[in-house]
Amino acid sequence: MRILVQKFGGTSVAGLDRMQMVMGKVRNALNRGYKVIVVLSAMAGETNRLLEMASKWSDSPNRAELDSLVVTGEQVSISLFSMLLNDNGIKARSLLAYQIPITTNDDYGNARILHINGDRLRVLLAEYDVLVVAGFQGQTEDGRITTLGRGGSDTSAVALAAALRPDAECEIYTDVDGVYTTDPNLYGKARKLPKVAYEEMLEMASMGAKVLQIRSVEFAKKYNVPVHVRSTFSDDPGTLVTQEDSSMESVLVSGIAYDKDQARITLRKVFDRPGIAAALFGPLADAGVVVDMIIQNTSREGHTDITFTIPQKDLKETIKLMEQIQGELGATEIAYDSDVVKVSVIGVGMRNHAGVASKAFAALKNEGINILMISTSEIKITCLLEEKYGELAVRVLHDAFRLDTHDYEG
Amino acid sequence: MRILVQKFGGTSVAGLDRMQMVMGKVRNALNRGYKVIVVLSAMAGETNRLLEMASKWSDSPNRAELDSLVVTGEQVSISLFSMLLNDNGIKARSLLAYQIPITTNDDYGNARILHINGDRLRVLLAEYDVLVVAGFQGQTEDGRITTLGRGGSDTSAVALAAALRPDAECEIYTDVDGVYTTDPNLYGKARKLPKVAYEEMLEMASMGAKVLQIRSVEFAKKYNVPVHVRSTFSDDPGTLVTQEDSSMESVLVSGIAYDKDQARITLRKVFDRPGIAAALFGPLADAGVVVDMIIQNTSREGHTDITFTIPQKDLKETIKLMEQIQGELGATEIAYDSDVVKVSVIGVGMRNHAGVASKAFAALKNEGINILMISTSEIKITCLLEEKYGELAVRVLHDAFRLDTHDYEG
Repeated sequence: MRILVQKFGGTSVAGLDRMQMVMGKVRNALNRGYKVIVVLSAMAGETNRLLEMASKWSDSPNRAELDSLVVTGEQVSISLFSMLLNDNGIKARSLLAYQIPITTNDDYGNARILHINGDRLRVLLAEYDVLVVAGFQGQTEDGRITTLGRGGSDTSAVALAAALRPDAECEIYTDVDGVYTTDPNLYGKARKLPKVAYEEMLEMASMGAKVLQIRSVEFAKKYNVPVHVRSTFSDDPGTLVTQEDSSMESVLVSGIAYDKDQARITLRKVFDRPGIAAALFGPLADAGVVVDMIIQNTSREGHTDITFTIPQKDLKETIKLMEQIQGELGATEIAYDSDVVKVSVIGVGMRNHAGVASKAFAALKNEGINILMISTSEIKITCLLEEKYGELAVRVLHDAFRLDTHDYEG
Repeated sequence: MRILVQKFGGTSVAGLDRMQMVMGKVRNALNRGYKVIVVLSAMAGETNRLLEMASKWSDSPNRAELDSLVVTGEQVSISLFSMLLNDNGIKARSLLAYQIPITTNDDYGNARILHINGDRLRVLLAEYDVLVVAGFQGQTEDGRITTLGRGGSDTSAVALAAALRPDAECEIYTDVDGVYTTDPNLYGKARKLPKVAYEEMLEMASMGAKVLQIRSVEFAKKYNVPVHVRSTFSDDPGTLVTQEDSSMESVLVSGIAYDKDQARITLRKVFDRPGIAAALFGPLADAGVVVDMIIQNTSREGHTDITFTIPQKDLKETIKLMEQIQGELGATEIAYDSDVVKVSVIGVGMRNHAGVASKAFAALKNEGINILMISTSEIKITCLLEEKYGELAVRVLHDAFRLDTHDYEG
């Protein structure tokens, strides 16, 4: 049995005409000899409508009940789509998470998948040609409804494919037709990548190239499930997100990511002594603020400056927390700035090759772009820049590595 | 453990302010020492919205998928109400049918309850003070979602109380504050009955006094669950629907029912020979047309006239069916009329007492009301009248049995 898992997002199921388009994709797969598992999101806007309703009822809704409320959006999608398939002579049925089951932990609103009953799916696939599964949802071991967090339907699809290894492949249909070297809205010369490594995709996703939910990529990487990213509205082959292979290693740079949802905080003349970092970042972690880049300058006269970046939405709370611990840290000043942007050069090939960083810095310098902060990992070089230089930096780096024409191999 | 099952309909959960009113009823029961099972319907209009959506997708939607779609309405209600209770310090959780489970047969759209896991409910009631259960829904033995038919939430409530005998009582909250001797909109002198027997309620419900879903009354009768019918919007004690007791037997007439959704068909000069009734009513039963009153006149010269009544909505189809078999029956004419109304005198005490029928006929005759058809059962006398006389007949009969002041005991 060859199984194809196809996931479609909210805009792909937003009405009857869209669903008919989705049915075309399903029929195509059936014609190619697959049994199909369709994973659907709620219709565009529906999850937000339900969340807004909940917020009218409660300032801080019970999380288990909130999950039980919002999953109704996907239930509507899968029931309607299953009706459509049946009306068109396709043997299909809908499946809610508990009917499989997809078992998760009980972290309501952000649950992690623990197990999927693949045997049950195989039994059902012997009876039906298409199973229409509600994305985004799971159930705890004692039978309560959970959700996997925003964009969780991607994770549902990858997890279902993982549960049916080695017989299943996975396609994620989105508004875009694949993964690009950079955001095409930012730079017209962006080129679609035929293939990208999980690690690169993780860096790109977390940097704002929001094609796939990060957790779905982590899941795909963990279970080695190749994921095709494709467009609902074309027949283009899209991008294959897959394990790094030898051909990828020769590619030094795959893409340039861009993220302007950044704010920078600097604490001046903090005591330079053990425990200061813990005293500083502990309260932020407790408050759920994700700190990204951190720089600590070398000490002078027992004091040092510490700079770090956070998402803009957390700026207000972060400043409040810093003011509370300012005395303890000995900081003379709390400076902040949200007119900054993060630009990253990403590529798994970098790992074995020097020179990418210096080439990037040189390209930025040639355009007179000042770098505020630098952070590097094995497969990524990130620069924090003044916001006004962000788009220029993307274009300059894209050109420097000639990403518009071919993979950059040094 | 004393358990109170409280059911609230769509208008009682139609918004936050209404739900707060419902919460008041629940809190009241908790203060009186009960554990509470709240059964909720979908918000008013929601089930129709979902059905209309389905009808856009499909002319004849797959029935299992349709059930899976429409139950989302109740899921929204119970999640929101559980949030509200939790926010107000009441230990509560929502329960979908599969989480109990409420097991039904697989007659999608009109499923019958086979079993409810009362032990599981008792375990949950040890942990929670209030369980908020989705009405109208069940699941098949192999885990698919079913619905119990329109108004099925009444049946859910009664069945839950039955599963928790002898510890549970049942309250059904509606827009009206009880069961009346006749429709108060029809006759201002209608009086609320403190108590009514299951059998009387069945006759009244099926005759148009639509306070409770018929099946819920059948269920209550079968398992002997007393049901309190009360108003969400008052503290009035309402009406207790219960087993007939000796005090009821002395009451000859409890109420006058009225139903104008009637059409009458007459087939003239049908062959009077064995098998004719089967040939006539078989096709109607196959088409799902419920025939109510039937009259066959005595035969003349091998022919007879047959008259019967059906719901008005089935008139067109019935005439079509009659035309198809007209030749076989030998009928010379098919006459029909929808300007008719059915008025019934109901009371369990009639069983042991003559004279009720003659009193009713005399009362109608005194007002010059002509009776078109008569049908009687142990606890009911039904007259079909010209529609224009319907409301007058109700008032005349109500007065004749002096139902405005006290129970009629002959």
